[in-house]
Amino acid sequence: MFKQKGMTYKIRLATKKDMPEVLRLIKELAVFEKEPDAVSIDESVLVKEGFGTHPLFTCFVAETTNGLVGMALVFMRFSTWKGRALHLEDLIVNQAYRGQGIGYALYKKVMEHAKELGVNRVQWEVLDWNTPAIDFYEKSGATVLRDWDVVQIHKEGIDRLASK
Amino acid sequence: MFKQKGMTYKIRLATKKDMPEVLRLIKELAVFEKEPDAVSIDESVLVKEGFGTHPLFTCFVAETTNGLVGMALVFMRFSTWKGRALHLEDLIVNQAYRGQGIGYALYKKVMEHAKELGVNRVQWEVLDWNTPAIDFYEKSGATVLRDWDVVQIHKEGIDRLASK
Repeated sequence: MFKQKGMTYKIRLATKKDMPEVLRLIKELAVFEKEPDAVSIDESVLVKEGFGTHPLFTCFVAETTNGLVGMALVFMRFSTWKGRALHLEDLIVNQAYRGQGIGYALYKKVMEHAKELGVNRVQWEVLDWNTPAIDFYEKSGATVLRDWDVVQIHKEGIDRLASK
Repeated sequence: MFKQKGMTYKIRLATKKDMPEVLRLIKELAVFEKEPDAVSIDESVLVKEGFGTHPLFTCFVAETTNGLVGMALVFMRFSTWKGRALHLEDLIVNQAYRGQGIGYALYKKVMEHAKELGVNRVQWEVLDWNTPAIDFYEKSGATVLRDWDVVQIHKEGIDRLASK
Protein backbone atom coordinates (compact mmCIF):
# COMPACT_ATOMS: atom_id res chain seq x y z
CA MET A 1 0.00 0.00 0.00
CA PHE A 2 1.19 3.49 -0.89
CA LYS A 3 -0.17 6.66 0.61
CA GLN A 4 0.68 9.90 -1.11
CA LYS A 5 -1.00 13.29 -0.77
CA GLY A 6 -3.74 11.70 1.30
CA MET A 7 -4.64 9.06 -1.31
CA THR A 8 -4.14 5.37 -0.73
CA TYR A 9 -3.54 2.99 -3.60
CA LYS A 10 -2.27 -0.51 -4.18
CA ILE A 11 -0.30 -1.93 -7.12
CA ARG A 12 -1.23 -5.55 -7.83
CA LEU A 13 -1.51 -8.13 -10.62
CA ALA A 14 -4.71 -7.78 -12.63
CA THR A 15 -7.35 -10.51 -12.67
CA LYS A 16 -9.98 -11.34 -15.29
CA LYS A 17 -12.51 -9.34 -13.31
CA ASP A 18 -10.47 -6.18 -13.78
CA MET A 19 -10.69 -6.28 -17.57
CA PRO A 20 -13.76 -4.02 -17.97
CA GLU A 21 -12.00 -1.30 -15.98
CA VAL A 22 -8.70 -1.95 -17.78
CA LEU A 23 -10.52 -1.53 -21.12
CA ARG A 24 -11.90 1.80 -19.90
CA LEU A 25 -8.32 2.96 -19.17
CA ILE A 26 -7.15 1.73 -22.62
CA LYS A 27 -9.90 3.77 -24.29
CA GLU A 28 -8.96 6.81 -22.22
CA LEU A 29 -5.37 6.55 -23.49
CA ALA A 30 -6.55 6.23 -27.10
CA VAL A 31 -8.41 9.54 -26.72
CA PHE A 32 -5.29 11.19 -25.26
CA GLU A 33 -3.25 9.81 -28.20
CA LYS A 34 -5.77 11.38 -30.61
CA GLU A 35 -7.08 8.07 -31.92
CA PRO A 36 -10.40 7.73 -30.08
CA ASP A 37 -11.72 5.08 -32.51
CA ALA A 38 -8.60 2.92 -32.65
CA VAL A 39 -9.62 0.46 -29.94
CA SER A 40 -11.28 -2.43 -31.76
CA ILE A 41 -11.00 -5.06 -29.00
CA ASP A 42 -13.52 -5.73 -26.25
CA GLU A 43 -13.20 -7.20 -22.75
CA SER A 44 -13.47 -10.78 -24.04
CA VAL A 45 -10.22 -10.36 -26.04
CA LEU A 46 -8.39 -9.15 -22.91
CA VAL A 47 -9.71 -12.11 -20.91
CA LYS A 48 -8.93 -14.65 -23.66
CA GLU A 49 -5.41 -13.45 -24.49
CA GLY A 50 -4.33 -12.53 -20.96
CA PHE A 51 -5.72 -15.35 -18.85
CA GLY A 52 -5.58 -18.53 -20.96
CA THR A 53 -3.08 -21.40 -20.77
CA HIS A 54 -0.45 -19.37 -22.64
CA PRO A 55 -1.15 -15.74 -21.67
CA LEU A 56 0.07 -13.19 -24.21
CA PHE A 57 0.53 -10.47 -21.59
CA THR A 58 0.83 -9.62 -17.91
CA CYS A 59 -1.13 -6.69 -16.50
CA PHE A 60 -0.59 -4.71 -13.31
CA VAL A 61 -3.20 -2.33 -11.93
CA ALA A 62 -3.29 0.59 -9.49
CA GLU A 63 -6.33 0.32 -7.25
CA THR A 64 -7.91 2.89 -4.94
CA THR A 65 -11.15 2.77 -2.99
CA ASN A 66 -12.71 4.37 -6.10
CA GLY A 67 -11.63 1.40 -8.27
CA LEU A 68 -8.81 1.10 -10.80
CA VAL A 69 -7.04 4.33 -11.66
CA GLY A 70 -4.04 3.00 -13.59
CA MET A 71 -2.56 0.02 -15.36
CA ALA A 72 0.64 -1.27 -16.99
CA LEU A 73 0.57 -4.06 -19.56
CA VAL A 74 3.70 -5.97 -20.59
CA PHE A 75 4.78 -9.02 -22.58
CA MET A 76 7.99 -10.88 -23.34
CA ARG A 77 9.93 -10.04 -26.45
CA PHE A 78 13.19 -11.30 -27.88
CA SER A 79 16.02 -9.04 -28.96
CA THR A 80 18.53 -10.53 -31.40
CA TRP A 81 21.10 -8.22 -29.82
CA LYS A 82 20.31 -8.55 -26.10
CA GLY A 83 18.22 -11.74 -25.77
CA ARG A 84 15.26 -11.94 -23.39
CA ALA A 85 13.51 -8.58 -23.15
CA LEU A 86 10.23 -7.14 -21.89
CA HIS A 87 7.86 -4.92 -23.85
CA LEU A 88 5.82 -2.25 -22.06
CA GLU A 89 2.74 -1.90 -24.25
CA ASP A 90 0.78 0.56 -22.09
CA LEU A 91 1.30 2.60 -18.93
CA ILE A 92 -1.87 4.51 -18.11
CA VAL A 93 -2.98 6.64 -15.18
CA ASN A 94 -6.44 8.19 -15.15
CA GLN A 95 -6.19 11.95 -15.74
CA ALA A 96 -7.74 12.82 -12.36
CA TYR A 97 -5.10 10.78 -10.52
CA ARG A 98 -1.93 12.02 -12.21
CA GLY A 99 0.90 13.74 -10.38
CA GLN A 100 0.58 11.56 -7.29
CA GLY A 101 3.28 9.00 -8.04
CA ILE A 102 0.94 6.29 -9.34
CA GLY A 103 2.57 6.21 -12.79
CA TYR A 104 5.98 5.91 -11.15
CA ALA A 105 4.76 3.10 -8.87
CA LEU A 106 3.44 1.15 -11.89
CA TYR A 107 6.67 1.82 -13.80
CA LYS A 108 8.75 0.61 -10.84
CA LYS A 109 6.55 -2.53 -10.65
CA VAL A 110 7.30 -3.21 -14.33
CA MET A 111 11.04 -2.91 -13.63
CA GLU A 112 10.74 -5.28 -10.65
CA HIS A 113 8.92 -7.75 -12.91
CA ALA A 114 11.64 -7.31 -15.57
CA LYS A 115 14.32 -8.01 -12.97
CA GLU A 116 12.52 -11.14 -11.77
CA LEU A 117 12.27 -12.39 -15.37
CA GLY A 118 16.00 -11.74 -15.88
CA VAL A 119 15.52 -9.61 -18.98
CA ASN A 120 18.33 -7.45 -20.35
CA ARG A 121 16.13 -4.70 -21.72
CA VAL A 122 12.68 -3.17 -21.39
CA GLN A 123 11.39 -1.47 -24.52
CA TRP A 124 8.34 0.55 -25.48
CA GLU A 125 7.12 3.30 -27.80
CA VAL A 126 6.28 6.93 -27.13
CA LEU A 127 4.64 9.67 -29.22
CA ASP A 128 7.29 12.27 -30.05
CA TRP A 129 5.02 15.14 -28.88
CA ASN A 130 4.32 13.54 -25.48
CA THR A 131 6.93 15.65 -23.66
CA PRO A 132 5.82 14.84 -20.09
CA ALA A 133 6.17 11.10 -20.80
CA ILE A 134 9.54 11.56 -22.54
CA ASP A 135 10.87 13.65 -19.63
CA PHE A 136 9.66 11.03 -17.15
CA TYR A 137 11.34 8.18 -19.08
CA GLU A 138 14.62 10.03 -19.63
CA LYS A 139 14.85 11.07 -15.98
CA SER A 140 14.38 7.42 -15.01
CA GLY A 141 17.43 6.35 -17.05
CA ALA A 142 15.69 5.23 -20.27
CA THR A 143 16.80 6.37 -23.73
CA VAL A 144 14.47 7.69 -26.44
CA LEU A 145 15.80 6.50 -29.81
CA ARG A 146 14.65 9.32 -32.07
CA ASP A 147 16.03 7.70 -35.24
CA TRP A 148 13.84 4.60 -34.94
CA ASP A 149 10.27 4.70 -36.24
CA VAL A 150 7.44 2.22 -35.80
CA VAL A 151 6.06 0.37 -38.85
CA GLN A 152 2.68 -1.38 -38.95
CA ILE A 153 0.64 -3.37 -41.40
CA HIS A 154 -2.96 -4.34 -40.67
CA LYS A 155 -5.23 -7.23 -41.56
CA GLU A 156 -6.07 -6.19 -45.12
CA GLY A 157 -2.37 -5.71 -45.96
CA ILE A 158 -1.37 -8.98 -44.28
CA ASP A 159 -4.08 -10.90 -46.17
CA ARG A 160 -3.12 -9.32 -49.49
CA LEU A 161 0.59 -10.13 -49.12
CA ALA A 162 -0.07 -13.64 -47.80
CA SER A 163 -2.34 -14.45 -50.75
CA LYS A 164 0.01 -13.26 -53.53
CA MET B 1 11.74 -23.44 -54.03
CA PHE B 2 12.19 -20.09 -55.74
CA LYS B 3 14.46 -19.48 -58.72
CA GLN B 4 15.23 -15.89 -59.59
CA LYS B 5 18.05 -14.53 -61.76
CA GLY B 6 19.56 -18.00 -61.92
CA MET B 7 19.75 -18.48 -58.15
CA THR B 8 17.74 -21.09 -56.30
CA TYR B 9 16.71 -20.62 -52.69
CA LYS B 10 14.25 -22.05 -50.23
CA ILE B 11 12.37 -20.34 -47.40
CA ARG B 12 11.90 -22.65 -44.40
CA LEU B 13 11.55 -22.69 -40.61
CA ALA B 14 14.89 -22.46 -38.83
CA THR B 15 16.21 -25.30 -36.68
CA LYS B 16 18.64 -25.24 -33.77
CA LYS B 17 21.45 -26.17 -36.16
CA ASP B 18 20.91 -22.95 -38.12
CA MET B 19 21.64 -20.70 -35.15
CA PRO B 20 25.39 -20.17 -35.82
CA GLU B 21 24.56 -18.92 -39.33
CA VAL B 22 21.58 -16.90 -38.04
CA LEU B 23 23.91 -15.23 -35.50
CA ARG B 24 26.29 -14.34 -38.35
CA LEU B 25 23.40 -12.61 -40.17
CA ILE B 26 22.37 -10.78 -36.96
CA LYS B 27 25.92 -9.45 -36.58
CA GLU B 28 25.96 -8.37 -40.23
CA LEU B 29 22.79 -6.33 -39.65
CA ALA B 30 24.27 -4.71 -36.53
CA VAL B 31 27.22 -3.50 -38.64
CA PHE B 32 24.83 -2.07 -41.27
CA GLU B 33 22.89 -0.32 -38.47
CA LYS B 34 26.14 1.26 -37.25
CA GLU B 35 26.19 -0.63 -33.97
CA PRO B 36 28.80 -3.33 -34.63
CA ASP B 37 29.31 -4.05 -30.92
CA ALA B 38 25.66 -4.18 -29.90
CA VAL B 39 25.21 -7.95 -30.23
CA SER B 40 25.85 -9.35 -26.76
CA ILE B 41 24.14 -12.74 -27.22
CA ASP B 42 25.74 -15.93 -28.50
CA GLU B 43 24.32 -19.01 -30.26
CA SER B 44 23.35 -20.67 -26.99
CA VAL B 45 20.88 -17.84 -26.22
CA LEU B 46 19.21 -18.30 -29.62
CA VAL B 47 18.95 -22.06 -29.05
CA LYS B 48 17.66 -21.69 -25.48
CA GLU B 49 15.06 -18.97 -26.15
CA GLY B 50 13.90 -20.19 -29.57
CA PHE B 51 13.73 -23.94 -29.15
CA GLY B 52 12.67 -24.66 -25.57
CA THR B 53 9.24 -25.68 -24.27
CA HIS B 54 7.95 -22.09 -24.53
CA PRO B 55 9.87 -20.59 -27.46
CA LEU B 56 10.16 -16.80 -27.35
CA PHE B 57 10.42 -16.49 -31.14
CA THR B 58 9.93 -18.15 -34.52
CA CYS B 59 12.66 -17.87 -37.14
CA PHE B 60 12.47 -18.38 -40.90
CA VAL B 61 15.57 -18.70 -43.07
CA ALA B 62 16.43 -18.36 -46.76
CA GLU B 63 18.72 -21.17 -47.83
CA THR B 64 20.84 -21.54 -50.96
CA THR B 65 23.43 -24.16 -51.89
CA ASN B 66 25.91 -21.72 -50.29
CA GLY B 67 24.11 -21.90 -46.93
CA LEU B 68 21.83 -19.38 -45.25
CA VAL B 69 21.64 -15.97 -46.91
CA GLY B 70 18.69 -14.45 -45.07
CA MET B 71 16.42 -14.71 -42.06
CA ALA B 72 13.27 -13.27 -40.49
CA LEU B 73 12.63 -13.50 -36.76
CA VAL B 74 9.18 -12.88 -35.25
CA PHE B 75 7.31 -13.22 -31.95
CA MET B 76 3.78 -12.70 -30.70
CA ARG B 77 2.82 -9.40 -29.15
CA PHE B 78 -0.42 -8.02 -27.77
CA SER B 79 -1.92 -4.72 -28.82
CA THR B 80 -4.42 -3.15 -26.39
CA TRP B 81 -6.06 -1.60 -29.47
CA LYS B 82 -6.04 -4.51 -31.94
CA GLY B 83 -5.48 -7.65 -29.86
CA ARG B 84 -3.22 -10.47 -31.07
CA ALA B 85 -0.34 -9.10 -33.13
CA LEU B 86 3.01 -10.24 -34.50
CA HIS B 87 6.33 -8.46 -34.08
CA LEU B 88 8.95 -8.64 -36.81
CA GLU B 89 12.23 -8.24 -34.93
CA ASP B 90 14.65 -8.75 -37.82
CA LEU B 91 14.49 -9.21 -41.58
CA ILE B 92 17.99 -9.72 -42.93
CA VAL B 93 19.41 -10.60 -46.34
CA ASN B 94 23.14 -10.96 -46.83
CA GLN B 95 24.50 -8.00 -48.80
CA ALA B 96 25.74 -10.17 -51.69
CA TYR B 97 22.27 -11.65 -52.17
CA ARG B 98 20.14 -8.51 -52.17
CA GLY B 99 17.97 -7.40 -55.09
CA GLN B 100 16.92 -10.95 -55.96
CA GLY B 101 13.58 -11.10 -54.21
CA ILE B 102 14.83 -13.00 -51.15
CA GLY B 103 13.83 -10.20 -48.73
CA TYR B 104 10.39 -10.10 -50.29
CA ALA B 105 10.03 -13.90 -50.04
CA LEU B 106 10.92 -13.79 -46.32
CA TYR B 107 8.54 -10.86 -45.78
CA LYS B 108 5.74 -12.73 -47.56
CA LYS B 109 6.47 -15.79 -45.39
CA VAL B 110 6.07 -13.61 -42.29
CA MET B 111 2.69 -12.39 -43.56
CA GLU B 112 1.57 -15.97 -44.27
CA HIS B 113 2.60 -16.87 -40.71
CA ALA B 114 0.70 -13.83 -39.39
CA LYS B 115 -2.40 -14.87 -41.32
CA GLU B 116 -2.19 -18.44 -39.96
CA LEU B 117 -1.92 -17.07 -36.42
CA GLY B 118 -4.95 -14.83 -37.01
CA VAL B 119 -3.20 -11.64 -35.93
CA ASN B 120 -4.68 -8.24 -36.69
CA ARG B 121 -1.39 -6.41 -37.06
CA VAL B 122 2.29 -6.97 -37.76
CA GLN B 123 4.60 -4.36 -36.29
CA TRP B 124 8.30 -3.62 -36.39
CA GLU B 125 10.85 -0.80 -36.20
CA VAL B 126 12.94 0.85 -38.89
CA LEU B 127 15.81 3.34 -38.81
CA ASP B 128 14.56 6.65 -40.24
CA TRP B 129 17.57 6.90 -42.59
CA ASN B 130 17.08 3.41 -44.06
CA THR B 131 15.26 4.68 -47.16
CA PRO B 132 15.42 1.43 -49.18
CA ALA B 133 13.73 -0.45 -46.32
CA ILE B 134 11.12 2.29 -45.80
CA ASP B 135 10.31 2.35 -49.55
CA PHE B 136 9.98 -1.43 -49.57
CA TYR B 137 7.64 -1.45 -46.56
CA GLU B 138 5.48 1.42 -47.81
CA LYS B 139 5.10 -0.11 -51.27
CA SER B 140 3.94 -3.33 -49.60
CA GLY B 141 1.08 -1.54 -47.83
CA ALA B 142 2.70 -0.93 -44.42
CA THR B 143 2.66 2.47 -42.70
CA VAL B 144 5.71 4.15 -41.12
CA LEU B 145 4.55 6.03 -38.01
CA ARG B 146 7.04 8.89 -37.93
CA ASP B 147 5.62 10.38 -34.72
CA TRP B 148 6.35 7.27 -32.65
CA ASP B 149 9.82 6.75 -31.17
CA VAL B 150 11.33 3.71 -29.51
CA VAL B 151 12.32 3.86 -25.82
CA GLN B 152 14.70 1.45 -24.12
CA ILE B 153 16.13 0.87 -20.68
CA HIS B 154 18.90 -1.65 -20.08
CA LYS B 155 19.94 -3.91 -17.24
CA GLU B 156 21.65 -1.28 -15.07
CA GLY B 157 18.62 1.03 -15.30
CA ILE B 158 16.18 -1.81 -14.64
CA ASP B 159 18.15 -2.95 -11.59
CA ARG B 160 18.42 0.59 -10.22
CA LEU B 161 14.67 1.28 -10.54
CA ALA B 162 13.68 -2.16 -9.22
CA SER B 163 15.86 -1.68 -6.11
CA LYS B 164 14.63 1.80 -5.16
